[in-house]
Amino acid sequence: MIDPAAPPTSDPIAELLTTYNELNSSSLDELAEIPSPLEFMRHVSRNRPFVVRGGASDWKATRTWSVDVLKARMAGMSVNVAVTPKGNADAPLKSEDGGMLLVKPCEEEQDFGQFMDYVIQQEGSGEMDGEVRYAQTQNDNLRNEYSELFTDVEPSIPFARIALQKAPEAINLWIGNSHSVTAMHKDNYENIYVQIIGQKHFVLLPPLAYACVNEKELSPASYVRGAGGGELVAQREDGDSVPFATWDPDGLGEGTRYSSLARPVRVSLGKGDMLYLPALWQVPSYHKVSQSCEDGICCAVNYWHDIEFGGSFYPLCGFARNVALNAMED
Amino acid sequence: MIDPAAPPTSDPIAELLTTYNELNSSSLDELAEIPSPLEFMRHVSRNRPFVVRGGASDWKATRTWSVDVLKARMAGMSVNVAVTPKGNADAPLKSEDGGMLLVKPCEEEQDFGQFMDYVIQQEGSGEMDGEVRYAQTQNDNLRNEYSELFTDVEPSIPFARIALQKAPEAINLWIGNSHSVTAMHKDNYENIYVQIIGQKHFVLLPPLAYACVNEKELSPASYVRGAGGGELVAQREDGDSVPFATWDPDGLGEGTRYSSLARPVRVSLGKGDMLYLPALWQVPSYHKVSQSCEDGICCAVNYWHDIEFGGSFYPLCGFARNVALNAMED
Repeated sequence: MIDPAAPPTSDPIAELLTTYNELNSSSLDELAEIPSPLEFMRHVSRNRPFVVRGGASDWKATRTWSVDVLKARMAGMSVNVAVTPKGNADAPLKSEDGGMLLVKPCEEEQDFGQFMDYVIQQEGSGEMDGEVRYAQTQNDNLRNEYSELFTDVEPSIPFARIALQKAPEAINLWIGNSHSVTAMHKDNYENIYVQIIGQKHFVLLPPLAYACVNEKELSPASYVRGAGGGELVAQREDGDSVPFATWDPDGLGEGTRYSSLARPVRVSLGKGDMLYLPALWQVPSYHKVSQSCEDGICCAVNYWHDIEFGGSFYPLCGFARNVALNAMED
Repeated sequence: MIDPAAPPTSDPIAELLTTYNELNSSSLDELAEIPSPLEFMRHVSRNRPFVVRGGASDWKATRTWSVDVLKARMAGMSVNVAVTPKGNADAPLKSEDGGMLLVKPCEEEQDFGQFMDYVIQQEGSGEMDGEVRYAQTQNDNLRNEYSELFTDVEPSIPFARIALQKAPEAINLWIGNSHSVTAMHKDNYENIYVQIIGQKHFVLLPPLAYACVNEKELSPASYVRGAGGGELVAQREDGDSVPFATWDPDGLGEGTRYSSLARPVRVSLGKGDMLYLPALWQVPSYHKVSQSCEDGICCAVNYWHDIEFGGSFYPLCGFARNVALNAMED
C-alpha cells in the first residue's frame, strides 16, 4: 500500500518530485559491460538511464572513423544539413512582436566534403563565426543518406532488440561541432546513443519532472534563407503551437516554483561510450558547450526503439504532465 | 513526446483512466507456459498481470493435497485462524455511532484438524451458519506454522527470483471456504498466486484507478471474543485511521464521479493455475462468492517479492493517489 499512514498531501507535485529524488540517485548507473537483455529490461522497467563506458569501442566505426575516412567514404555525395544562425536547432526565439517562436533549422543539401570542411574550419577558429551546420536528420539517415557508412556500426543493439522484441525504428548519424546544440526534447523512444568521435555532454531529467521545466506553447517557425543566399531569417509557419520546455537545469530560462526540486543526471560520453536514454526523458541543452570535438568534429550514432505504450507508465507520464500544466495555470 | 499537439486537459484524472483503457485490454494475458525471467520482466515493466493455466499442475501440492492428506500431515498441530462473524476480514463496518470502522479479524489458535472440520462442515451446510474461519496469516506462514507442508511446493518461483533478483520475502498458505473473503487491498509486493484446491475468483484494478475506488479514512478496530467464549464484537482500537477503498467494481459501495471509468480485470483460477498479480494492483473482493471449494475447502499459496522502489513507477502511483484524494475533497 502506498504509505498507508500518510494523509493526502496538499501538494502532490512537490511530493512526487521529492519522493523520486529520495528513491533515485542523481548519478548515472555505470555498467561494467554490455547488459544482457534481462539486465537491460530491468533498467527499462525502472525507466532509468545507464552508461557502458567503451561499450562500442570495438565497433569498426569507433576504431576507424576519422575526418579523412568519412570524407573519402562519402566523397561526392550530397547530404541534408540543418543550418541555424547560432547552432540553436529547435530552439525558442523571441519574435519581433514579443511572442515566442520555436524555430526549426533551415534544411539545405550540401556536398558532404564541403559540409565537413565548414564544420572543422569553424571549430578550429576558436569562436563562433557564421552559421552553424549540423548533420542531424533524425529520419533513419544511417540506413539511407549515409548507408555507405552503415556497415561500420552494429545493425542493431542486440540486448535492446531482444528485450524490447523490436528492431530499431530508426538509426541516426549525427555530425557537427561544439556549436551544434539540440534544445530540450523528449522522445517516445527507448534510445541507445553511441559516441563515435569527440565528446557529448548530457543533462537529463526524468519524465515526471514536467512541472520543473516551464513548458510553454510556442508558435512554430523555421529559418529560411533570404533572397540571393542571404542571411537566415526566422519565419512564422501556420499550424498548432508547439509545447516547449523553456527552463534549463543550468539556470537558463525562467523556472517554476518546482524547478528547484529538479535533480538532473549529468553524463559526458567519450569515444565508444554507450548511453541508454530511457523513453520520455527530457534532454535540456541550452548550455553553451554540449559537445567537445576531436579533429574538429563530433560524431555519434543513435538507435531508436518504439516505446511500449501498454501498461501504466505512458499514461502516468501524460497524467503528470497534465497535472503540471494545470498547476502552472493557477 | 506525450501527444505534443494536445492542450492540457482540464480533467487529468479522466484522461489518465481513458488513456489507460485505450492502451490496455481488460482481459487477462494467458501465457501458454511458465515465462522466462525476461518474459516475466516485460510484464513487471508494464505492471500487467497474467495467468499460466496449469502452471503449477506438476507441483506435489497440486497433485497430492486433499482434506485427508492435509489433516494427516498437520495432525496435532495448532494454527492461527482469522475469525469473523461473516467472513469479512479487514472489512469496513458501520459502528453504532455511525462512523466507519475497518475491522481486523479475531485471531485465535486452533487445532488444525478441528479448524478443517469446521470449514468443511460450514461449506457443506449450503449456507453461512456461524462464524467464518480462515487460515490466512500473511506472515510467511508456509515456512513457519505450516513448514511441514512447505516441501510440497516450490521453494521459490525461479522466473520471478531471477528477474527480480530477490528471494521471496514471504510465502503464504491460505485455507478457507467460500465464505472467506478478503476486502480490497493493495500490496507493495510483486505477487505470484497459485491455486492448489478449489477455485478463486479475482476482480482486479490497476493502481492508477485510485480515483475510482472512493478511498475513505476508517477507524481501526478488531473483532474480539466476548466474555466466556461469546460472540465476536467489533472493538475500536487506538491508532491512526486507515485508508480503505469503499467502492467495488461489482457496484457495491458508493462510487465516485470516476468509478464508471474503471475497467476491472476478472479471472478465475482453478487447480494448478498461477497468477502474476503486479505490485500495487487493487483487489476488491466484496462480492459474495470469491472462492469456490472442492471437498469443502479452498487452498492457495502465494509468493511475495518486494517491489522495486527505484525508478518512476512507485512515485507516480503515489502521485496518482494524492491527486485523486485531493480531487475527492473538492
